[in-house]
Amino acid sequence: MKLSQLASQLKAEHVGEADISGVASVTSAKSGDLVYAADEKHLAGALSSQAAAVIAGEFAREAAAKKPRLIANNPKLAFARAAKILQSGSQKPVGINPTAIVVPEAKLGKDVFVGPLCVVAGGTIGDGTHIGARTTIAPDVVMGKNCKIHANVTVRSGTTLGNNVEVQSGTVLGSDGFGYVRDDETGRYEKFPQVGRLEIGDDVEIGANVTIDRGALDATVIGRGVKIDNMVHVGHNVTIGENVVIAAQTGISGSVVIERDVIIAGQVGIADHVRIEEGVILGAQCGVPSNKVIRGKGVVFWGTPARPIREYLKELATLARLAKKK
Amino acid sequence: MKLSQLASQLKAEHVGEADISGVASVTSAKSGDLVYAADEKHLAGALSSQAAAVIAGEFAREAAAKKPRLIANNPKLAFARAAKILQSGSQKPVGINPTAIVVPEAKLGKDVFVGPLCVVAGGTIGDGTHIGARTTIAPDVVMGKNCKIHANVTVRSGTTLGNNVEVQSGTVLGSDGFGYVRDDETGRYEKFPQVGRLEIGDDVEIGANVTIDRGALDATVIGRGVKIDNMVHVGHNVTIGENVVIAAQTGISGSVVIERDVIIAGQVGIADHVRIEEGVILGAQCGVPSNKVIRGKGVVFWGTPARPIREYLKELATLARLAKKK
Amino acid sequence: MKLSQLASQLKAEHVGEADISGVASVTSAKSGDLVYAADEKHLAGALSSQAAAVIAGEFAREAAAKKPRLIANNPKLAFARAAKILQSGSQKPVGINPTAIVVPEAKLGKDVFVGPLCVVAGGTIGDGTHIGARTTIAPDVVMGKNCKIHANVTVRSGTTLGNNVEVQSGTVLGSDGFGYVRDDETGRYEKFPQVGRLEIGDDVEIGANVTIDRGALDATVIGRGVKIDNMVHVGHNVTIGENVVIAAQTGISGSVVIERDVIIAGQVGIADHVRIEEGVILGAQCGVPSNKVIRGKGVVFWGTPARPIREYLKELATLARLAKKK
Repeated sequence: MKLSQLASQLKAEHVGEADISGVASVTSAKSGDLVYAADEKHLAGALSSQAAAVIAGEFAREAAAKKPRLIANNPKLAFARAAKILQSGSQKPVGINPTAIVVPEAKLGKDVFVGPLCVVAGGTIGDGTHIGARTTIAPDVVMGKNCKIHANVTVRSGTTLGNNVEVQSGTVLGSDGFGYVRDDETGRYEKFPQVGRLEIGDDVEIGANVTIDRGALDATVIGRGVKIDNMVHVGHNVTIGENVVIAAQTGISGSVVIERDVIIAGQVGIADHVRIEEGVILGAQCGVPSNKVIRGKGVVFWGTPARPIREYLKELATLARLAKKK
Repeated sequence: MKLSQLASQLKAEHVGEADISGVASVTSAKSGDLVYAADEKHLAGALSSQAAAVIAGEFAREAAAKKPRLIANNPKLAFARAAKILQSGSQKPVGINPTAIVVPEAKLGKDVFVGPLCVVAGGTIGDGTHIGARTTIAPDVVMGKNCKIHANVTVRSGTTLGNNVEVQSGTVLGSDGFGYVRDDETGRYEKFPQVGRLEIGDDVEIGANVTIDRGALDATVIGRGVKIDNMVHVGHNVTIGENVVIAAQTGISGSVVIERDVIIAGQVGIADHVRIEEGVILGAQCGVPSNKVIRGKGVVFWGTPARPIREYLKELATLARLAKKK
Repeated sequence: MKLSQLASQLKAEHVGEADISGVASVTSAKSGDLVYAADEKHLAGALSSQAAAVIAGEFAREAAAKKPRLIANNPKLAFARAAKILQSGSQKPVGINPTAIVVPEAKLGKDVFVGPLCVVAGGTIGDGTHIGARTTIAPDVVMGKNCKIHANVTVRSGTTLGNNVEVQSGTVLGSDGFGYVRDDETGRYEKFPQVGRLEIGDDVEIGANVTIDRGALDATVIGRGVKIDNMVHVGHNVTIGENVVIAAQTGISGSVVIERDVIIAGQVGIADHVRIEEGVILGAQCGVPSNKVIRGKGVVFWGTPARPIREYLKELATLARLAKKK
């Protein structure tokens, strides 16, 4: 692909021309590769790399080096989009592998790929969706267009995926929630019915070995554009708003509501019936006790129980000072 | 099913009659559905829902509305049992899917189901047990009656399951424990043998993407009625007593003993050789250091290192006050 | 196997002779079994067990009992090695199961085993490597000699394994890292390319349901002899040095560097761009914030943010004392 074509698709300016076949880091770039410089201090390295061209900001326009370049407002964002454009050029496999088990009732759209040893026990799969090897799709699953389901994913019944959803390997969607009722006479637990749905919006991306439980009687809902890292647990009846980002190993208990644009770091724990309001940032390993409401756009919370980070850091400093005195 | 039949199976009283086909929440109920009201304040909503009937407590006996109802001591428990009764009416699939690999040495009971692309490499599977798609059963596994193993579970050799055990997708039972011996001359680690057993009692329910390690030389033991949520890790040689409940992402290190009726919240960490005595409650994210004994029926522990919650909350309050002073 | 043969392979002394067929714990040992006594206080129990022979230290040389024994400097280490020697005597299965899907392009060494319903979509597999049932190997994977990949593992493209690597079930190697660029105009996230490699050294052992992400543009690197427990998450571009040990449910964010001989307990969280220097010990559940450097051979760190355990314990004691005063 020509650098100028890429520039036009990215709505960026180009200086010079080059043939681009892939993306790389500055240290590993070879001819044909595109690299980026996020800021001026990374520019010299990028320009002197083996790459065919550099995406950079306004700061790169007047650089003396002759290497072809794209000028973009957000060079890293433009680089990510360039990678996607370059990748979309490569031919995707299409068709049902002869070793996949696809029941006749399953409704498959155009240009669907179903990999070897998959089980598609029914449901509807949209145009252009890719099902990797050894994945299981339950009978009444509905999957949108251009999804990418990697190898060895399990999608249980009652699950609906929007368009452009990506799911990494080992992930389980629509597992039964953890709900029991104790019989006080015997001390034994009876399982509460876990027969609800799981609804996943467009452009959601889900990491590896994640578990998202279906609702008990109603639905677990993952909003448009949510990004979920590896080994995150989402309990039953949780609602997550648009563009929420959740880092690895975070656990979200039943009936939690997370509003849009929240950012959750790794290993955070959110107990049941909590509400995290719009734009809150939860620091790594913090814990939110049951029924709490956490509020404040752009406010960072830390610690268990989670409190505004300024308070928490002040407490840590106070404690360190007192301990030193003794 | 008639409401009166359900009442008789639940040993509950019924007021009025209705045809019941399923369970639902008050907001999603349609005709034919059964709902419940846990207490008086939820009664009006349940009675005015689209549901065919309501399970409620004594408080509902004299309600003016004409909707048929069941009167039970613990409405939520009765609802859970009603759901199970209604579900048991639906026909379960039976037989070995032709794409499953079942070795001739495997001993299968009556009315067993083995789903597509399973590998049953031996072992014994009890009457009425259901093995979901793409599950692996190692040669010497023993599985009781009426178990429900969901899709894509891995059961390693040396594992025994009781009756009525349910295991969600992605879970690994009987993996090797984490035991190494350091060679001080080289700084390298040698694997300690991990060749013991995993014994799981009746009525145990295990979530998705859980790992339970086999014993090193002896056994890991999960007692009758234990309920384990998603992504819980149970190390080698652990013993867990009856009716213990363990929420998501908790980790239990090797050789821990957990006595009966303990409740463990999410993301708790229990180090090796700890003993948690009968009826203790461990709060979310708390941590119990190696070799500790935690004691006290109904006592809640919190923090790392875990301490009685009253102490912990007092410490938190003290620290907050001191930090504000500065 | 004769005890004397075992002694010669272990370079240990033997007192008496016996036929050894397996290893066991002192309580479960039967005739033919080998047990060990790590120290003098465990010796009497071992000598009076049903075992055929005991591995013990110098302290056992003059014991009155007649049971045959091996005298080793580190009895537990010798026992672990004995177990390995005894196990290596048992015949390993070899060959490709007829239900495995192995593409013709895949290059398989001598004495490779590929289990039922595996998908080997290409790549190179070294001599003597064992691929358990229902495992997926992507096209360009390179796997060394004598690896043991258990059932239901997913190895994504760009992954290289050294020799003698063991991977437990449910683990995902080479999943996409969690990297996004926010478009500030729309609030949406664009996926940063995750197309790098994962390089795993010789003698690495990886637990069940682990996830290790490939590099974004470069490589994630796991050094020789690293041992990783169940449900550990390793992010993209992480580098882990030789002989590092990582306990269950620990999470390591992107671009972290962990130097050789570090020991990491369970549920530890390490944020992005952290460096853990040689020989550091991180206590369970501790947390290391972004960009920190943790230093000190043999120094134990605890708490969040992680600090030397002496400081942390002093702080805990100070706080407990202050809270009691009020």
